[in-house]
Amino acid sequence: MTHDPHPWATTLPSLLDEVWRRLARGVHDRRAAARHPTLATISQSGAPQARTVVLRAADRSGACLRIYTDLHSAKVAELQARRQAALHIWDRGAHLQMRFSASVTILTGAEVANLWAQLPQGARLSYGGAPEPGQPLSDALAYQKSPDPAAFAVLHLDLQEMDILHLGSQHRRARFARANGWAGMWCAP
Amino acid sequence: MTHDPHPWATTLPSLLDEVWRRLARGVHDRRAAARHPTLATISQSGAPQARTVVLRAADRSGACLRIYTDLHSAKVAELQARRQAALHIWDRGAHLQMRFSASVTILTGAEVANLWAQLPQGARLSYGGAPEPGQPLSDALAYQKSPDPAAFAVLHLDLQEMDILHLGSQHRRARFARANGWAGMWCAP
Repeated sequence: MTHDPHPWATTLPSLLDEVWRRLARGVHDRRAAARHPTLATISQSGAPQARTVVLRAADRSGACLRIYTDLHSAKVAELQARRQAALHIWDRGAHLQMRFSASVTILTGAEVANLWAQLPQGARLSYGGAPEPGQPLSDALAYQKSPDPAAFAVLHLDLQEMDILHLGSQHRRARFARANGWAGMWCAP
Repeated sequence: MTHDPHPWATTLPSLLDEVWRRLARGVHDRRAAARHPTLATISQSGAPQARTVVLRAADRSGACLRIYTDLHSAKVAELQARRQAALHIWDRGAHLQMRFSASVTILTGAEVANLWAQLPQGARLSYGGAPEPGQPLSDALAYQKSPDPAAFAVLHLDLQEMDILHLGSQHRRARFARANGWAGMWCAP
């Protein structure tokens, strides 16, 4: 690629600002790249797993993100065993790759009742039903969805590190870490 | 989403055909979703890692895929320690998520000299230079790229399983495994 960098990519603070702007946009804009990150976990047999998720909240002050899922999905069992996760966003329009490492807390029941109450009826169909996600079926549609607040889980991601890559005529890559107050440093792309 | 399924999503063989069609398109079409999968590995500290890669080859007869990388990138060190990887593609236009588990072989040197010879000069800049990828820099552009065939590595992915999800008015999810000849079975989404 031979295009110039976006102005926000030229300093560490403006690059970090742009990451949080794009995360915030992902929460509210179905067309934004950050709407659909890829969440990577480690399976119980020790293999990496990756799947698309929907970004539901982004809080810069606490450096945390939120994702909703079915409590009976494989990713919840994986995170119960190993709470470390990676989140990945490739924003093609911005030539920007955002990689996050995070420690995940699984919230359920009364802790998330207020979020459940805010979900439209149609959205609730993603949580609950039988058989559980991943179970074999005799036919493609031999399953039923029925909204169940007891199957609603919120993945709360406390971000630990970010690895941000901007592709331009010269690539720029930076790492930011919670441990040093998100000050950031450049590194070789 | 309330749209009808694509016709290819309604049977296991046609769904598998479509996956391979989209992989083949990814190799040759820069605009295809399968051009830029996300590769997940496990770091040496045991945390999942995910990053965008470029799909370079897709061979249905052997059920293998290929990706190029810098031999000195973190993903190579991670795969040398644990060869298990996951590859993820979210094809938004097709409402199709493709998840692959794979065992990875790292090819270098004489094994890949013919592939290196076919790379345009500009593309070779992605392999080689100093400092190595991920090393800290005093400034964003304090690095040099210089094509180095000794830094060119090919990740050869032998696919083991696929988990395919088509989103429609009713979602359809199927798993296919090398172990049973890729016959496939439906499972709950």
